[in-house]
Amino acid sequence: MDANPILAETVRGNWVENRFRGAYAVVDASGRVIASAGDIERAIFPRSAIKSMQALPIFARHAEEKFHHTSEELALACASHHGEDDHVATARGLLSRLGLSVADLECGAHAPTNPAARDALRATGAEPSALHNNCSGKHSGMLSVALAMGVPTAGYVGREHAVQKAVRAAVEAVIGEELTEDKCGTDGCSIPTFAAPLRAFAYGFARMATGEGLSPELGLAARRLFDAATAHPHLVAGTGHADTLIMAAFKGRVMQKIGAEGVQCGAIRNKGWGYAIKCDDGNPAASQAMLAGLLLKFAEPDAEQKAVLEKFAGQVIKSVRGADVGVLRTLVA
Amino acid sequence: MDANPILAETVRGNWVENRFRGAYAVVDASGRVIASAGDIERAIFPRSAIKSMQALPIFARHAEEKFHHTSEELALACASHHGEDDHVATARGLLSRLGLSVADLECGAHAPTNPAARDALRATGAEPSALHNNCSGKHSGMLSVALAMGVPTAGYVGREHAVQKAVRAAVEAVIGEELTEDKCGTDGCSIPTFAAPLRAFAYGFARMATGEGLSPELGLAARRLFDAATAHPHLVAGTGHADTLIMAAFKGRVMQKIGAEGVQCGAIRNKGWGYAIKCDDGNPAASQAMLAGLLLKFAEPDAEQKAVLEKFAGQVIKSVRGADVGVLRTLVA
Repeated sequence: MDANPILAETVRGNWVENRFRGAYAVVDASGRVIASAGDIERAIFPRSAIKSMQALPIFARHAEEKFHHTSEELALACASHHGEDDHVATARGLLSRLGLSVADLECGAHAPTNPAARDALRATGAEPSALHNNCSGKHSGMLSVALAMGVPTAGYVGREHAVQKAVRAAVEAVIGEELTEDKCGTDGCSIPTFAAPLRAFAYGFARMATGEGLSPELGLAARRLFDAATAHPHLVAGTGHADTLIMAAFKGRVMQKIGAEGVQCGAIRNKGWGYAIKCDDGNPAASQAMLAGLLLKFAEPDAEQKAVLEKFAGQVIKSVRGADVGVLRTLVA
Repeated sequence: MDANPILAETVRGNWVENRFRGAYAVVDASGRVIASAGDIERAIFPRSAIKSMQALPIFARHAEEKFHHTSEELALACASHHGEDDHVATARGLLSRLGLSVADLECGAHAPTNPAARDALRATGAEPSALHNNCSGKHSGMLSVALAMGVPTAGYVGREHAVQKAVRAAVEAVIGEELTEDKCGTDGCSIPTFAAPLRAFAYGFARMATGEGLSPELGLAARRLFDAATAHPHLVAGTGHADTLIMAAFKGRVMQKIGAEGVQCGAIRNKGWGYAIKCDDGNPAASQAMLAGLLLKFAEPDAEQKAVLEKFAGQVIKSVRGADVGVLRTLVA
């Protein structure tokens, strides 16, 4: 297998310490590759980077008509949230309106990602619940789909459950590729994840950003989800996270979502371009450096947006005593 | 730059998710390369993997004659410890005998690496101190060198301080390479770290393991340090860590030390071979998988040793709910 190019590196003092290889694609809604590096046909697991695609059945299966998801709940369905108060309250609110509870979530419990939220929860003596799981918004949305479809909610994470079949069909419709059992694994939150070419995810994001090539219903659903996510950047990740800061700075113009193991997907909406990045070794910080380089290059940032991106394009490495001793920097330029 | 080979990978379900490139060298004390993969002449930062080399001035500068370091204190000088009770007590004990205190440590404070020790400290309401820093044993040893040399202890972490010059000279003597300012950075604990060819570190470990090519004094010092580290594997890392488990299983036959950013160095002492590994992207778990593959291949493990190594050669990846969803596995075979 040919090696992908080095797209980020860490430098300590005056010498390169680590090298991060990867691939990226910027694609328009016609499928034209605007720019790329590395092997963009290699199938990658998109993980949480495509939660907005996985949320499409909320519309396609008419859950939104029935339960009137708020813009905040739609944003949280697209989120890997940090377990802060607004995240937990939003997930709890939807579950309650569905007549369900935390006991119906099948994502598992983990401590809040946000350190302050984690400490605050610990101080109460309570154990983390599935509501604190970064995927609780996505799972609450999936439960609404099960109810709208009139199928049992139990087991909704299973590959053969109607909800996951609907999710799979929605992703296939958007990325224009068949998702197959020979490239399938289980995500951290217990739902299936299917690998597909990196290019196809960028293409899917371009189609969601523009509606081009999608049915009117799917196009409208995509717009509602992107509008919700970009209107509530804090709900999509959390305090200090790149996705939150970048979407806030771009004021609706960029949809951005991290996925586990070095994946980044999103869209430069005003240009109608989707993008997808995979850091070969799965390093999240390196993938954020690659992302920042990509947006600096292709998203025409203004001064404020540029300032946000530059913090991730060149991430300072500090000693324990707080001295600057190196930098993790993008090589996408 | 040619890409190094893929030496570890993660598989999720039935598809490869991440790839980890790197290089390794197994070298004997004559400098003969027994086995290698990738570019072993590329200069890498060894970071904490060479703490045993950095501890040599405890002997070379006669600190050991003056302060009679215990075997435990010598082991801790070679350690990246986890801040457990025995680690903290051992560092505090040496400092006290030196007439110094935690205030003289210049490594900075961080919370114990061991989660139980971290929680226990937090429960007392006390802040982490420099004693909990994984490098406090190395730094206590360096303070003993400053005292033995009759130089001020303050500023002992600086590149121009006599202690760091002695450390640099010792490393150069052992690895047979000049360490130069054009390949230099600052480690997390504030001391200088110099990059040198991966092969040279493997060579240095072979020479320390055998004494071959070293002065009798340096050879004896190396033996004392390796004996101490392998006699007290828990002091060199901590509960559950690969270095501790591997050294315990090999009962003195393998000296093993992790370094930050995907470095592994050590020696198969009964064979007189040193080894060094660098995972290009710095992933520690992947470097441990590579290490386990290397030791399975070259260290002639018995059944018990093999069982320990296999846990790191194939590391199970779990979902939040605890199901096995993948594996991080070595490709060194």
